Amino acid sequence: MKSHRSKAGTTVIDHILNRLNDLGVRHLFGVAGDYNLAVLDHVVAHPEVKWVGAASELGAAYAADGYGRIRGFGALLTTFGVGELSAINAVAGSYTERVPLLHIAVGPTQATERAGLTVHHSMGDGDFDRFLRAQRQVVCADAVLRPDNAVMEIDRVLTACLRESRPGYLRVPRDVALAAVPPRRPLAAPRQQTVDQGSLDAFRAAARARLAAAKSVVVLADFLVDRFHARSELADLLRAGAFPHAVLATGKTVVDESAPGFLGLYAGAMSEKHVRAAVDRADLLIRAGVLLADMTTGKFTHRFDPEAGIDLGPRSAKVDGAVFPGIPLATGLAVLTDLVRDLFPAHSGPAVAGHHRPEAPTRRVPARPAAVPRRTTPRRSRLHGSLRPLTQSYLWYAVGSAIRPDHTVVADDGTSLLGIADRRFPRGARFVAQPMWASIGFSLPALLGAQLADPSRRGVLLIGDGAAQLTAQELGTISRYHLKPIVILVNNHGYTIERITHGLRAPYNDVARWHWTKVPTALGVSHPLVLRARTRTALDRALARATATTDRLVLIEAFTSQYDVPPALKRLAVNRPDKARWVA
Amino acid sequence: MKSHRSKAGTTVIDHILNRLNDLGVRHLFGVAGDYNLAVLDHVVAHPEVKWVGAASELGAAYAADGYGRIRGFGALLTTFGVGELSAINAVAGSYTERVPLLHIAVGPTQATERAGLTVHHSMGDGDFDRFLRAQRQVVCADAVLRPDNAVMEIDRVLTACLRESRPGYLRVPRDVALAAVPPRRPLAAPRQQTVDQGSLDAFRAAARARLAAAKSVVVLADFLVDRFHARSELADLLRAGAFPHAVLATGKTVVDESAPGFLGLYAGAMSEKHVRAAVDRADLLIRAGVLLADMTTGKFTHRFDPEAGIDLGPRSAKVDGAVFPGIPLATGLAVLTDLVRDLFPAHSGPAVAGHHRPEAPTRRVPARPAAVPRRTTPRRSRLHGSLRPLTQSYLWYAVGSAIRPDHTVVADDGTSLLGIADRRFPRGARFVAQPMWASIGFSLPALLGAQLADPSRRGVLLIGDGAAQLTAQELGTISRYHLKPIVILVNNHGYTIERITHGLRAPYNDVARWHWTKVPTALGVSHPLVLRARTRTALDRALARATATTDRLVLIEAFTSQYDVPPALKRLAVNRPDKARWVA
Repeated sequence: MKSHRSKAGTTVIDHILNRLNDLGVRHLFGVAGDYNLAVLDHVVAHPEVKWVGAASELGAAYAADGYGRIRGFGALLTTFGVGELSAINAVAGSYTERVPLLHIAVGPTQATERAGLTVHHSMGDGDFDRFLRAQRQVVCADAVLRPDNAVMEIDRVLTACLRESRPGYLRVPRDVALAAVPPRRPLAAPRQQTVDQGSLDAFRAAARARLAAAKSVVVLADFLVDRFHARSELADLLRAGAFPHAVLATGKTVVDESAPGFLGLYAGAMSEKHVRAAVDRADLLIRAGVLLADMTTGKFTHRFDPEAGIDLGPRSAKVDGAVFPGIPLATGLAVLTDLVRDLFPAHSGPAVAGHHRPEAPTRRVPARPAAVPRRTTPRRSRLHGSLRPLTQSYLWYAVGSAIRPDHTVVADDGTSLLGIADRRFPRGARFVAQPMWASIGFSLPALLGAQLADPSRRGVLLIGDGAAQLTAQELGTISRYHLKPIVILVNNHGYTIERITHGLRAPYNDVARWHWTKVPTALGVSHPLVLRARTRTALDRALARATATTDRLVLIEAFTSQYDVPPALKRLAVNRPDKARWVA
Repeated sequence: MKSHRSKAGTTVIDHILNRLNDLGVRHLFGVAGDYNLAVLDHVVAHPEVKWVGAASELGAAYAADGYGRIRGFGALLTTFGVGELSAINAVAGSYTERVPLLHIAVGPTQATERAGLTVHHSMGDGDFDRFLRAQRQVVCADAVLRPDNAVMEIDRVLTACLRESRPGYLRVPRDVALAAVPPRRPLAAPRQQTVDQGSLDAFRAAARARLAAAKSVVVLADFLVDRFHARSELADLLRAGAFPHAVLATGKTVVDESAPGFLGLYAGAMSEKHVRAAVDRADLLIRAGVLLADMTTGKFTHRFDPEAGIDLGPRSAKVDGAVFPGIPLATGLAVLTDLVRDLFPAHSGPAVAGHHRPEAPTRRVPARPAAVPRRTTPRRSRLHGSLRPLTQSYLWYAVGSAIRPDHTVVADDGTSLLGIADRRFPRGARFVAQPMWASIGFSLPALLGAQLADPSRRGVLLIGDGAAQLTAQELGTISRYHLKPIVILVNNHGYTIERITHGLRAPYNDVARWHWTKVPTALGVSHPLVLRARTRTALDRALARATATTDRLVLIEAFTSQYDVPPALKRLAVNRPDKARWVA
């Protein structure tokens, strides 16, 4: 860990940057504003942390979120009032989907505050804490920094962010940001997740009995496994038990989707039939880091009993409804792995991955889920591919097939997310989306962040034309920072996900018609490769060119009918017509 | 006033729309989201109020603000959580600059709330009032509507908006929006601004003494005259007294700038010399609806004593620091007009407009301010206009000269605002800007709103390339609603106003380089006329073509040096070098 001292000694902003650097943050996203300019001098001078100036604060905040999802921590710097409020929607999304990040809002000096001056970006009434009170609704910890509390408060907020895996907020008067701080000490490790030993013993006993009696075991995994750093413990359990397993959309790519035990995406009545059957009918369903939300359960159409089975949360475990507090998720998973190895020793270890354990023959769960016959390609048509218009079914089949292990796929809400989510990704590929907060326009700036977080991977953006209009300006930022993603812009003339919810032909579901092929160049992308696809053949060719063209940003404008939807929504409509309208 | 009843009888949303319609609102701005779709059916069915779907909620909210500035009331409809939070920065600006509007955020049903479901756009913790608590920081009144309180609460919030000239917020569960309400009664007039008769008498006496003794009188007018509906009372006073008068940037076009008594823009040390001298040295300065903010006073470089003279606020008046409560602004102005007519009867009435009153010969204030010699054209150069590169000085001179009486000029913060503000507009021309809240990107969507508010006027947008990147997507919305403004895009490669504040060559003041001439078409503008100007001659020609071309949107990309600033900033640097850096 390198630290940075400016010539004048370490200032509060240097200290914050050093702390962020310690947490793995190498990019700070934001927009310059007059209150923060002198502070940005310290950012651009920092040897490790780079400034990424976005076109808008909302874009910067989504980028910080995407960065945090891939890298474990994100950071955002805005200007007081106007800037920080423009970012608040994105930060609320980080809270909801548990992305840890720090939002630093730099404001007027303490002298200005004390005098209660009517300065720009204040609300003219001398109340400089209005924005703090608003931001407090969307973060897990906040502070107003003063020279005498800064060091302590920064660590308190960062520790809370790490503990809760959620955003924190610092309001920093400009003069405080530039004030000197004493030489730093290392960040006290976020309070170790304390294990309650008695609770753990009781959990072990209950889980052992439940596992031993189970006729079939299925594991359902979700995003809290990622946020609470339990990926490897989950992988261990899946290897040890060779259990069939599925993920929720929020948890996509939290497991190796190429593994033979992987069933696919579980989404209640939106799931593929075999996934739904396996999860809903498992005798023992182990849930790892699962949060059941409307968008991830096909509008709460899951049929398993959420009180039954083994449920591992971030800090506590449940067995058939009995709560065992003080058990971190990773610890709970490790206990289960030990139990499985002990109860079923023959099948321990990676060698048996994919095998079903014979002690508990399942009548309901297919023995080798990967072998379940499934139609993975859309129905044949009499038309040749070059004539067959592109359908959502084919689009997501083809896009899914083009995903490579080194891709970070970022999908916006709506048909893009629902279409790609149940495509099986190759091992290594990462998926970023926002199914719970579901703020359209999230994905385009999130791609900026996700790519900078791991430049060894190529970004693939999947976004509809309605969503893309919200944050399109960050295409210029993506190019400014020399990123060369593949952007698949699904042009279906408006908000298709809303049309099928309500107002199929209503004008409020239309959007302005942009000339998408002209957008990248207009917004500053250098030499984009721009392709259009109205047929299957054109899409196949475009995808092949896109994956082969790594030195430029590639935009594929893919046209689908404004009334066509991905298979998951068709399944929901067939299985639960009462839930087909996508609204709470 | 037409009212609207849907087939199923009047619903809460119909009632809101009828109330808005009564207030003169004919356009409701927003973005569709699944929670509000069924509600939007009622909007599109309303016979008077039209739905304007914007590309983003921030844009919609700025548009509602621009609409409210021209029309007296604005309205915004968003979806719960994601949508309403994206709009909050703009609504805070409306609060700060006292634009009355209603923000309606439509959310999940009451049943969903009661069950505390983990639905999308909530923060997953069953707390459905988080966003209300955030919004409460930026509005003057708020309510959560329920079927049994809706009618009462709607009127309470609207009345507060009218009384305070500020935004209000309604959180409306979807089922409540669609619930029936009893037949409506007329909106009780917003509590009449009660006049304190004793206070008024005392004010009249104090003002009479002050006026009678004054050696010179100057009037400084500001935006609260507009917001508290006292334009005609101010005009009466100016006519009655033939007083020299100036405006602050926030109040630009609140008076007829072609009148002979109009001095120009007052902005402390940024003012033109004669304006500064007249205002700062007046023996009696009458301030009408003035709020002294950093951005409008050249960083508080005004030299008059803010406790001296006559100061008319929205609801109280002051004479040499003595406060007279309970006097509405319009009443205070009317009292002064009566006093002036009584004290100086020879000069009463419109016939003497422009005359200086001889009873109080001013040694300090020029008798006919319009006759003060001023250099209105920038310095001559040896180069021919076709070779002379465009300067900020020439740009604003030329743009100012092109403004017509039927123009609504909308300027973004930064050099655009500072450049155009001290150009004298023809009678009738309107000016919209946001000098206090100063959120860059405001102007482009505000133009959308301002033009819809009065389609008989043509919009002229003045915006820099940095600011335009924040909300450029609304160009598509402007075209979608068939508006044909003139857009003058000042391309100076980044945030020039910030460069001169701090970081002249710092990378954080750079922005992505867009191809602005390609932007309108890319973002859906039909057949724009796109022009570029690098020289004086090119600008003159472009402006002539733009004003002559009324059937298309016209974009003029005007290039200036990234280090060049308008005259007002040069004056500040000369007069008060200590204040030249534009930061609090």
